Amino acid sequence: MAVSLWKSLLQTTKSRLFLQRGVSLYNGVHGFEEEAIKKKLQQFGGGSINLSKEDHGIRVLTLNNPKQMNAFTGTMMLELQERVTELENWKDGKGLIIHGAENTFCSGSDLNAVRAMSSSEDGMNMCMFMQSTLTRLKRLPLISVAVVQGKALGGGAEFTTACDFRLMTPGSEIRFVHKQMGLVPGWGGAARLVQIVGSGVALKLLSGALRVDPERAVHLGLAEETLPSSDETRSLEEAQAWLNKYTKAPAEVIQAVKKVVTAGRELQLEAALRAEKDIFGTVWGGPANLQALAQSTKRK
Amino acid sequence: MAVSLWKSLLQTTKSRLFLQRGVSLYNGVHGFEEEAIKKKLQQFGGGSINLSKEDHGIRVLTLNNPKQMNAFTGTMMLELQERVTELENWKDGKGLIIHGAENTFCSGSDLNAVRAMSSSEDGMNMCMFMQSTLTRLKRLPLISVAVVQGKALGGGAEFTTACDFRLMTPGSEIRFVHKQMGLVPGWGGAARLVQIVGSGVALKLLSGALRVDPERAVHLGLAEETLPSSDETRSLEEAQAWLNKYTKAPAEVIQAVKKVVTAGRELQLEAALRAEKDIFGTVWGGPANLQALAQSTKRK
Amino acid sequence: MAVSLWKSLLQTTKSRLFLQRGVSLYNGVHGFEEEAIKKKLQQFGGGSINLSKEDHGIRVLTLNNPKQMNAFTGTMMLELQERVTELENWKDGKGLIIHGAENTFCSGSDLNAVRAMSSSEDGMNMCMFMQSTLTRLKRLPLISVAVVQGKALGGGAEFTTACDFRLMTPGSEIRFVHKQMGLVPGWGGAARLVQIVGSGVALKLLSGALRVDPERAVHLGLAEETLPSSDETRSLEEAQAWLNKYTKAPAEVIQAVKKVVTAGRELQLEAALRAEKDIFGTVWGGPANLQALAQSTKRK
Repeated sequence: MAVSLWKSLLQTTKSRLFLQRGVSLYNGVHGFEEEAIKKKLQQFGGGSINLSKEDHGIRVLTLNNPKQMNAFTGTMMLELQERVTELENWKDGKGLIIHGAENTFCSGSDLNAVRAMSSSEDGMNMCMFMQSTLTRLKRLPLISVAVVQGKALGGGAEFTTACDFRLMTPGSEIRFVHKQMGLVPGWGGAARLVQIVGSGVALKLLSGALRVDPERAVHLGLAEETLPSSDETRSLEEAQAWLNKYTKAPAEVIQAVKKVVTAGRELQLEAALRAEKDIFGTVWGGPANLQALAQSTKRK
Repeated sequence: MAVSLWKSLLQTTKSRLFLQRGVSLYNGVHGFEEEAIKKKLQQFGGGSINLSKEDHGIRVLTLNNPKQMNAFTGTMMLELQERVTELENWKDGKGLIIHGAENTFCSGSDLNAVRAMSSSEDGMNMCMFMQSTLTRLKRLPLISVAVVQGKALGGGAEFTTACDFRLMTPGSEIRFVHKQMGLVPGWGGAARLVQIVGSGVALKLLSGALRVDPERAVHLGLAEETLPSSDETRSLEEAQAWLNKYTKAPAEVIQAVKKVVTAGRELQLEAALRAEKDIFGTVWGGPANLQALAQSTKRK
Repeated sequence: MAVSLWKSLLQTTKSRLFLQRGVSLYNGVHGFEEEAIKKKLQQFGGGSINLSKEDHGIRVLTLNNPKQMNAFTGTMMLELQERVTELENWKDGKGLIIHGAENTFCSGSDLNAVRAMSSSEDGMNMCMFMQSTLTRLKRLPLISVAVVQGKALGGGAEFTTACDFRLMTPGSEIRFVHKQMGLVPGWGGAARLVQIVGSGVALKLLSGALRVDPERAVHLGLAEETLPSSDETRSLEEAQAWLNKYTKAPAEVIQAVKKVVTAGRELQLEAALRAEKDIFGTVWGGPANLQALAQSTKRK
């Protein structure tokens, strides 16, 4: 009895926590030293993470370090965290498109930063920092799409899995090259890849460092479709048109849709049901619902 | 050590709870006021939920409110709970077919009831009531099939996901129209849809309010197949023939099969393994097993 | 706060436990009497479980009891546990191929042992023993492949699901025949089958006792591909060539890849992320990583 009550309380807490914003996956209990790792990352500069203005409820996030195929420097990791915080506070958002500058997606981490942080502790702290940001990114109440042009390699391949969907341009590739660097994913890319394509395909992609072109990605369920154009501007327009099909409703409704799906993706059935009920309560009797009901009465 | 012991006890309890019947998902801890919501639902009458007699271990449940495309009135929600209790106590059952009266499946909730319960609290209590019934329905130790004729819309689309399988007649459709009403699923349809088709497809179906015809449903894994006939009587016969392929064994064995699959669907691996072992123990050395062993000895 | 801290500690513990070797799923708390069941199994002899020497990081495990289509006697169950312990302690391993002697996979349990252990308690103890061994087998930090020649029936079908992949030879079949014996899987085959093919397909395969040939297995995602050859020696060579594509890296890297995928397969997202970070920490700055970094510097 006591156990059962305690369990109920824990699960209620879990469902509520899950809906909060800005919650880090890690804290001191896990050995995470956020301020120390931020200071180290600050030392490796270059590139930027840019966020466009809103257009029809959609914003575009650009990984911008073209000299290094948009590899993540330390300051880009810090900027990504700031941009995600900004997106968490975006009240009217519906969709997010993520791409890399100058016709390629991202080649992972900047090797200069990597070389300077080669201790196991530094590596795990960097992972905790990036996992936390990418988990918050994936949980954003926005429909997110990675537009993969050129190459998404290593950490870049992992990054694409932090979006709800992947669209690929002709000739592009996603490749988990980690084993060739003597590594495995550490930004959460393995855990998320298993959720997207299943553990069998994930094991093959990681242990074979297989090159996944658009056709294969669609076949495996890793990408939604191949965009017609490989030109940077046009493929972004095509991605926006694709996303528009899924954002035609008030922001509060699209955000609630994303939240119920996130709950279904992350939680066990009973906890997901509880979260779904809580999220339903935020739109039931809300402005969009009342307006739709009023219109259905008029039609009578 | 203490933690580990406590964990073991909790998981054993969970596995046992999971096998009990009539357990509600919600109680007072979750703010669920079951008696109050039942009184409110009682005020919105019309339609019925009918249950046929057994035929070869299979019963047919009919959603019957054809004037409103079989929309759920308050009393239909109450009757559904009673029918599910009846099915939980059905000792010799193997299969269940669910369909709507007069050649259409179900259009969700009766809007009259919806309008009278527009507070967030009422909405969440109605969700908890329906989630609890539909979770008990999906966990029944019977193989359940929704036969979708005509339209399964909104709550009707959610209802189909509470069955193990969906069979569709030519020209029929499943459509999660919630966003057009400014809503998201609240009867557990989102959580169950993610389990059936994955989170990517679920996000598209919900955010796009996409119309899913039989071909697309089969392609997405939402339906098993398209039945040849769209005539009500004949399509029910075809569904029964389909289901018969999976119910040729003593009831105790079919029920145990459904239970191990339910455990695998709902629980994490270790808990599912424990449940599988417990369920195995209910048939091992049981009448059907002893008879099969005796026959294999004779054949020698 | 206290709850949250406790939860963190529990999850950290879980992630660590998960990475340990030789941990049994069951102990006295679950009613598991390991020594008693081992004594009983010892009474039913015949057959053996053989393990080849290493070849390019790959070993071959043979189920060897051809007089009974490689059915598991009691002593084979005991030997399997010993071989798995041996594989857990194999430091340089990358891959494992499992097959049956004389051109067939395995027909489940030896019926003589079965008849002598027909009490529910004995049955559940045997299940706990086999589940524990097969869970340790599936969690081995090796890429494992079942080569299915001839028939994999009942417990033999369950056994194939304890490998990462299944390759089938022409004319072979996997069939969960349990219901024909008045049974359900009890070696964990149902829980693992649901993870591999989803709950809908699993329910059909178990309740229909469907015969799955190679083409159907590939279509359902139960097998990777049909090997060209049905000859025992040649199909093993083909399996080895298939596996070689996924083992080209130092053992420490392949083992880490398998571990992150196992975490993603078994744990909920947040726990899987924590495990991924811990596993990443074991290779980051390790010999294979440092060598790759040195080579990338030279190439500059």
